[in-house]
Amino acid sequence: MSVKTFSIACPAPLKPVDIVQMAHGGGGRLMHQLIEQYVMPAFQNDALSVRHDGAVFEVAQARLAFSTDSYVVSPIFFPGGDIGSLAVNGTVNDLAMCGARPLYLSAAFIIEEGLPFESLERVIASMRTCAEAAGVKIVTGDTKVVDRGKCDKMFVNTAGIGVIEHSWVIAPSQIQVGDAILLSGDVGRHGVAVMASREGLEFETTIESDCAPLAAPVLAMLDAGVQVRCLRDLTRGGLATSLVEIAESSGLGIQIVELEIPIEESVRGACEILGLDPLYLANEGRFVAFVAEQDGERALEILRRHEACAQAQRIGTVTEKPQSLVLLESVLGTQRVLDMERGEPLPRIC
Amino acid sequence: MSVKTFSIACPAPLKPVDIVQMAHGGGGRLMHQLIEQYVMPAFQNDALSVRHDGAVFEVAQARLAFSTDSYVVSPIFFPGGDIGSLAVNGTVNDLAMCGARPLYLSAAFIIEEGLPFESLERVIASMRTCAEAAGVKIVTGDTKVVDRGKCDKMFVNTAGIGVIEHSWVIAPSQIQVGDAILLSGDVGRHGVAVMASREGLEFETTIESDCAPLAAPVLAMLDAGVQVRCLRDLTRGGLATSLVEIAESSGLGIQIVELEIPIEESVRGACEILGLDPLYLANEGRFVAFVAEQDGERALEILRRHEACAQAQRIGTVTEKPQSLVLLESVLGTQRVLDMERGEPLPRIC
Repeated sequence: MSVKTFSIACPAPLKPVDIVQMAHGGGGRLMHQLIEQYVMPAFQNDALSVRHDGAVFEVAQARLAFSTDSYVVSPIFFPGGDIGSLAVNGTVNDLAMCGARPLYLSAAFIIEEGLPFESLERVIASMRTCAEAAGVKIVTGDTKVVDRGKCDKMFVNTAGIGVIEHSWVIAPSQIQVGDAILLSGDVGRHGVAVMASREGLEFETTIESDCAPLAAPVLAMLDAGVQVRCLRDLTRGGLATSLVEIAESSGLGIQIVELEIPIEESVRGACEILGLDPLYLANEGRFVAFVAEQDGERALEILRRHEACAQAQRIGTVTEKPQSLVLLESVLGTQRVLDMERGEPLPRIC
Repeated sequence: MSVKTFSIACPAPLKPVDIVQMAHGGGGRLMHQLIEQYVMPAFQNDALSVRHDGAVFEVAQARLAFSTDSYVVSPIFFPGGDIGSLAVNGTVNDLAMCGARPLYLSAAFIIEEGLPFESLERVIASMRTCAEAAGVKIVTGDTKVVDRGKCDKMFVNTAGIGVIEHSWVIAPSQIQVGDAILLSGDVGRHGVAVMASREGLEFETTIESDCAPLAAPVLAMLDAGVQVRCLRDLTRGGLATSLVEIAESSGLGIQIVELEIPIEESVRGACEILGLDPLYLANEGRFVAFVAEQDGERALEILRRHEACAQAQRIGTVTEKPQSLVLLESVLGTQRVLDMERGEPLPRIC
């Protein structure tokens, strides 16, 4: 038995096209390419191919939704939330977007050596508060620690299980010409709040993340019999990217009116200074609902009864043409096509 | 609207006792303290308090198991496996240890900017192969990218759902005096394989990880009506730590015989050179089964029909005393008490 060390010849440097870049995690076109090229072909199955925020399947007669997200937001604490509230609300919301009642979450922590216990405690307390507010239980978990400099304070993964208590299918494939497109509130706050916090920017008023659980308003619509065709929470890539995804998946057109999109004055101001487009900024407590035209007004009334959706608005309509495209009628009355990757996506926003 | 930067006064340095250390992720006593002190009190609920590898609960009459693990192994490729095979088999095995048939997995990737796509592709291909071998589908997922130096190549989280198709309760609380303790194969290979690969050590023969899915042998025992009381896969902390956990949870004694524990000659040699104890090394395809005394022989026969359990052995018996302790009868005939943290646990082994 002998032991020796060996060395490996240094390979030629790789070209940018051969390596993963930050934008591959930004929620835009490059991330979609990565998923379509590497993940989808390898794991292909019916549940995955729906390309939804979560998977839906039956187990022993129960119709379940299952979703996961890892959270790598920097900094881990920011106005209006932290990595813990994101991790709970984010997965709760992904389940809600499947039309499911969220029930159980897992919580897995990757912690950088040297993290103060005080930070861990704050994050866990925040997760507890959010889990209670959303009515879910954190039932299983995992803890890993990596060496200093091999992680950034902490990363959190949550996966969640929800039960689907109705027979609707909620997916981009279900939307129909004429459907009303509802937006649950103002957009852009989460993105600006995290970026301002990260870069040490101070505005006249502190902009707080919109991070909130969305299951209650969604279930209220379903319970009231609103014909909900498709739901999508507006995380990485923001409102614009989500709508483009749905237009492309459904093959139908989406027409929205810029004036109807609520944006806080402070967010609009910050975006002007920073050169950002609020339609592409991440939100963590906002969603779009595609509902049958005749249910649009009733759905808005139901949504507005919930604090997180008090500013809900109808922002547009599903159209036959232009196929697979999103048309925005601007404040000036002109029309432009929205694409996924306009504006560099902000990295590590969730 | 104005924008300015601000700085924060540097706080006093924190003491080691106030920060997370590598050993908090090692699977030993410190990790248990972290979980008991911070996680359990915050998230308390029935499913979590079982302290099992996964949670068990009912949803609409279906009895389900749910588990998660994040994988941070370094290096991501090693003899006998990679971070992808670990991530699939690890969660499949946690579900199997709940006595569940694994059905669905999620896969969440945190990727360091600059990772070659070739590496991502290899990991995903390996996950696909392992998922097919274990009969599970990867149905939902997530991809995040973090800046260079904020992660180490890639971390993978998997969560899994399994269905429990029998009425047994499988948990440390179920073990009884006289139960036979079965070990599914030789121990220590995964730990030595990863460490040798990380440190560039070469032995006469390449030691390969034992990474393998364990659901088939477990379900075969259950299908044959073997009274399975408790199951535990031997990951971080190895055989010794798993047995100590079960002794402490159950309040009963565990007596095992060193001579009955299979250890490969090459692993034994490597451990002697490196000063490691194979009973504390991580495995990724090994488990212990506590079964009713009268079913011991039959269970061994069933296990040995599966390739991953060909070397299964009975290694001991549950005793009334000494309460909550594990006694090892050594090769020399002496007895010693095993504790969780003998030997520094190897970091980032899974």
